[in-house]
Amino acid sequence: MKSFMDKNFLLNNNTAEVLYHDYASQMPVIDYHCHINPAEIMENRRFDNITQAWLGGDHYKWRLMRAAGVDERYITGDATDREKFQKFAEILPMCIGNPVFHWTHLELQRYFECDLIINGDTAGQIWNITQEKLKKDSLSVRGIIASSNVQAIGTTDDPLDSLDWHKALRRDPKNNVVVSPTFRPDKAINIDKPDFVDYIIKLGEVTGNSIHTVDDLKVALLNRIEFFSEMGCRASDHGLDYIVFRSTDDTTIESIFQKSLDGQSLSENEVESFKTNLMLFFGREFARLGWVMQLHYGAMRNNNEPKFKLLGPDTGFDAISTRECSQAIASFLNALESESKLPRTILYSLNPNDNAMLVTIMGCFQDSGMSGKIQHGSAWWFNDTKVGMEQQISTLANSGVLGTFIGMLTDSRSFLSYTRHEYFRRILCNLLGELVERGEYPANIDILGEIVKDISYRNAARYFGYEIRE
Amino acid sequence: MKSFMDKNFLLNNNTAEVLYHDYASQMPVIDYHCHINPAEIMENRRFDNITQAWLGGDHYKWRLMRAAGVDERYITGDATDREKFQKFAEILPMCIGNPVFHWTHLELQRYFECDLIINGDTAGQIWNITQEKLKKDSLSVRGIIASSNVQAIGTTDDPLDSLDWHKALRRDPKNNVVVSPTFRPDKAINIDKPDFVDYIIKLGEVTGNSIHTVDDLKVALLNRIEFFSEMGCRASDHGLDYIVFRSTDDTTIESIFQKSLDGQSLSENEVESFKTNLMLFFGREFARLGWVMQLHYGAMRNNNEPKFKLLGPDTGFDAISTRECSQAIASFLNALESESKLPRTILYSLNPNDNAMLVTIMGCFQDSGMSGKIQHGSAWWFNDTKVGMEQQISTLANSGVLGTFIGMLTDSRSFLSYTRHEYFRRILCNLLGELVERGEYPANIDILGEIVKDISYRNAARYFGYEIRE
Amino acid sequence: MKSFMDKNFLLNNNTAEVLYHDYASQMPVIDYHCHINPAEIMENRRFDNITQAWLGGDHYKWRLMRAAGVDERYITGDATDREKFQKFAEILPMCIGNPVFHWTHLELQRYFECDLIINGDTAGQIWNITQEKLKKDSLSVRGIIASSNVQAIGTTDDPLDSLDWHKALRRDPKNNVVVSPTFRPDKAINIDKPDFVDYIIKLGEVTGNSIHTVDDLKVALLNRIEFFSEMGCRASDHGLDYIVFRSTDDTTIESIFQKSLDGQSLSENEVESFKTNLMLFFGREFARLGWVMQLHYGAMRNNNEPKFKLLGPDTGFDAISTRECSQAIASFLNALESESKLPRTILYSLNPNDNAMLVTIMGCFQDSGMSGKIQHGSAWWFNDTKVGMEQQISTLANSGVLGTFIGMLTDSRSFLSYTRHEYFRRILCNLLGELVERGEYPANIDILGEIVKDISYRNAARYFGYEIRE
Repeated sequence: MKSFMDKNFLLNNNTAEVLYHDYASQMPVIDYHCHINPAEIMENRRFDNITQAWLGGDHYKWRLMRAAGVDERYITGDATDREKFQKFAEILPMCIGNPVFHWTHLELQRYFECDLIINGDTAGQIWNITQEKLKKDSLSVRGIIASSNVQAIGTTDDPLDSLDWHKALRRDPKNNVVVSPTFRPDKAINIDKPDFVDYIIKLGEVTGNSIHTVDDLKVALLNRIEFFSEMGCRASDHGLDYIVFRSTDDTTIESIFQKSLDGQSLSENEVESFKTNLMLFFGREFARLGWVMQLHYGAMRNNNEPKFKLLGPDTGFDAISTRECSQAIASFLNALESESKLPRTILYSLNPNDNAMLVTIMGCFQDSGMSGKIQHGSAWWFNDTKVGMEQQISTLANSGVLGTFIGMLTDSRSFLSYTRHEYFRRILCNLLGELVERGEYPANIDILGEIVKDISYRNAARYFGYEIRE
Repeated sequence: MKSFMDKNFLLNNNTAEVLYHDYASQMPVIDYHCHINPAEIMENRRFDNITQAWLGGDHYKWRLMRAAGVDERYITGDATDREKFQKFAEILPMCIGNPVFHWTHLELQRYFECDLIINGDTAGQIWNITQEKLKKDSLSVRGIIASSNVQAIGTTDDPLDSLDWHKALRRDPKNNVVVSPTFRPDKAINIDKPDFVDYIIKLGEVTGNSIHTVDDLKVALLNRIEFFSEMGCRASDHGLDYIVFRSTDDTTIESIFQKSLDGQSLSENEVESFKTNLMLFFGREFARLGWVMQLHYGAMRNNNEPKFKLLGPDTGFDAISTRECSQAIASFLNALESESKLPRTILYSLNPNDNAMLVTIMGCFQDSGMSGKIQHGSAWWFNDTKVGMEQQISTLANSGVLGTFIGMLTDSRSFLSYTRHEYFRRILCNLLGELVERGEYPANIDILGEIVKDISYRNAARYFGYEIRE
Repeated sequence: MKSFMDKNFLLNNNTAEVLYHDYASQMPVIDYHCHINPAEIMENRRFDNITQAWLGGDHYKWRLMRAAGVDERYITGDATDREKFQKFAEILPMCIGNPVFHWTHLELQRYFECDLIINGDTAGQIWNITQEKLKKDSLSVRGIIASSNVQAIGTTDDPLDSLDWHKALRRDPKNNVVVSPTFRPDKAINIDKPDFVDYIIKLGEVTGNSIHTVDDLKVALLNRIEFFSEMGCRASDHGLDYIVFRSTDDTTIESIFQKSLDGQSLSENEVESFKTNLMLFFGREFARLGWVMQLHYGAMRNNNEPKFKLLGPDTGFDAISTRECSQAIASFLNALESESKLPRTILYSLNPNDNAMLVTIMGCFQDSGMSGKIQHGSAWWFNDTKVGMEQQISTLANSGVLGTFIGMLTDSRSFLSYTRHEYFRRILCNLLGELVERGEYPANIDILGEIVKDISYRNAARYFGYEIRE
């Protein structure tokens, strides 16, 4: 029996141990997609206690607490931080097999040098230990980033964002991490949402020209794209319910937009036509600028309306949609490819059943002259688990070239999540090690080591245009 | 090499052995959903021979025999019981990897104390051994229930059922098992089926008021719900082709019902509107009464029409549907949640691809104050296999709180199926044991033992309101 | 650690070793579905070099090269054969976990007696070794077939094909392999494709009667079916985007056909109605003749239009479609079953999520009196991997009778692909061995050996009507 989460955690064979300890663990982190707040880096935020660091905004943990019957008062309510931590610690042992069980213990080990097992009995002790440690510089946001060997961070930003914090970070001589904004224009695309027109008005204000036509809209968006580009942006991100492709002429698009500005309701076809038109516009511009386009789809959001009204979005009431869109994905990529304007693209579906489909569509749009141009994104959100990662890596290996994979991102709101890169790298090394130990790949540790370093770090650095520092 | 189905069958590590033998195997059985006939308990039915016990009505076995080319005469036809058993025994060795191979040998070992391996050569000997044993009291229905440590049984019953057998069992002082009816009103919902109007007429007769409107229908159904409640019912069950959600006003629902009574045909929209309306009605009532609502969907039934005409339903001609309904499931649960009338609910899909989607939707409707209010049902029917169970447990663990799982049910027509609880518990213990042995969960046998006892027994007892007897 | 691809490659337990070496490996090969060119057998083609044998037409390898960023010049362009091989060898190490890595090394070991590991450094040496070997008779097409112990080959042929090469092979006294044509009438069904009318005209010419009505079309197709039958055909094959079932009366079908001949465009409903009608016609005829009907569906083809215009079909730009069609499959099989005209049928989906659905639909149409009448086809194309095969075999075992499975086919354009039968057999033996070693199936090597021989060879021989030669 292996001891619980020791140094060879998730490494179940000798080759895996060597690959992880001698290669993967040495690599810096490129966390190219996350949801952290750059202000917290600039201001070098500190956390008063473990509840602030762990439970303030982490809907993964909130869902577990609700499923275990914890009262909402101890989740998002007015209980004290200490009480909230107690309740979380009490239900964690029931979460056997859940990644949160591993994430929390890994964070406790790596950032707090604490090997205790979290449960109701140890909660008090852990509370005290962590509170002491959180006073130290090494557990300020910049301390965490430094000790996690993070080279670059891709935040997620609205086109209207001033990027002032990014600016400040670029100017700060004490800042050692590259913080790149990511252009996420969901609100400019979601013509079916009630706040669309307000958003368009604000976009006009920010860009200094009021928006009356689709052309105006595109000029304004382009204005923001250029601004983001100047601020070091190198990628977009798109949260789409499902991927649409409904090709329509410009006159129709204009009339759909005018209906929307007039407050008229739109048919599903009209909504899809408009979204397709804007997504194609974006794709062309990103190809021109050399940006990466990230497509995240397959989430059904805010499914529990009473809780949405109470707590707002991103509070733990989202789920996987299984809506089918294979033809739309292929058609969308082909439309850009047909104009020679397909940017580097990363495809992420929240539905794990889509893995094989995505990897095979991806294979139709790879481009001679660039390694791994189209990528299947690392296992995302509900799939960001040991099983989910193994399936994503295995599917990619089976139908694609695993060695070109750009690997892990945290997609997290928490600075303690960099350990997920460790988690991913251990799983990756274990899978590769298994192939070798079973005689399914040659035991050439040099070649394997290069593959591991590529997937852990270098492929992402190259893909997003960061300097390679090894 | 482990020997075939010995005492550590399916237990492949030490932790698993301890968890199964010291914890899981000690727990009583709550078989909260099955299709056994309560008359057979009341009358303490005995089986003349193994064919009656195994092959009379078991479409799993019939399908295997047909796939192996056995003549229908030996399956549902006029061959003798001995001949039928012979044919079954002859083809069983080809069914390598099929759960029926394990189920039959487990039943042979546990109920008949026979370790023989079933095949054409041993069939005669097994026939004789089992025939002797079947004469004993221990192999009467009540004997089987007692030796299987069954505390409670949830049958499946039509709203029109008199529940006379349930009544008799409640009054019988010699009966030690709680037999609860389950309210299954499929026929009252299936407005698209040819026998719908006849059913409505009968429902009016049984409740003493003829049904002319949707309100009449609901009053009659409520009447039966109250009656079932008095008879100890604590759960409903719904067999739905797919889950629908099409919200419509009451006037339209009434007109759809009237068209149906008039013998007019209905559009798919109308059918879905009616079904949605009735399912919402049921949900509200079950929430009020504290019942559990079980939703079984994703079966395509009676696919082979010639065989359906010949043999009727439930004879082995059903299959998995992959029709998509994630949005409908989320919307249906949300509609009840929005009225604060979402009952405890168990979601079962016959399509194993739906596991991740269901577990994540479930997580959106968990309720503070009750542990595991919404459940992902144990692997069902075609998925009731080692692989299917492992996938269901793993998906649940990955995105939910495994420790709150209510665990296994047989869904069976046979009293010998209680061994499937053993089968499930062994698989559960093996999976938990693997996590521990690989260092992915602490080797704390007390905590693990509690989790195992909860999932094997106590969670289901609490969920369905049975007394905990340990 | 096992050494790389040694004699026990993929065999990870003792039982597996015995089953493979003593049983599976002894069996001849029935390659009942492939895309090789019979002319190359007749003319006993030789390959000048390894690039011709490996990279001339193999879109699996082309996709890997593109994904790794190799310039198209080295894939389908005007680079020399030596240069192309070099580029392929250079990127192969990155393809860790991809079946092409195994296929190429297996072919190198078996046909070229070369144990080198393919990479940029060894490419030159391998080029030289293979070039020497390719001069020998043993590496002519007939030499490869003989050394691979191939008894029968099912090619894939258009109804218009003269089958002259098949004729010549039947007459050739030196030819030891049965080469059966397979009737693949996709072009006669695809009324939505631009070349449909031209094809109908040609079909009229070939059969000597111009085609003006659907009846004419069916007479012409029947003429070709009879001709194929005389030439030893025993199976059809159908490449369908998705499986349709839309029942329509003959008058409507006729009008749809007339619209098509007149060059009018058709609605999706009309296209589906026509295809359904023809597929039902084919099914009836195949049942009458005792042919096997193979249904391949779930591919989205030619997704990259610029590349399609440049390189044509089958050049590496196809993907998996996840379009749902469970009800259509069940309805189609039922329509034929209802007329007692359902032929032996093999169901293949490119979407691996369909496995469980297909295996359960299949179970609804098995026929007493014939073992394994309806089959779930071996893992296909993108799923023709270790993981894909394991999933297909496991799903089949879970819900069907694994012992009746007809097993592997290459589906390949290359004569070196017969090693994929070895690959499949090793995986099969390993899975069966695991069941035995874990105590989940009795360690009766005689019964296991028979099952292995059945699945490796005898079931396919019986199913397609080839003589059993052991």
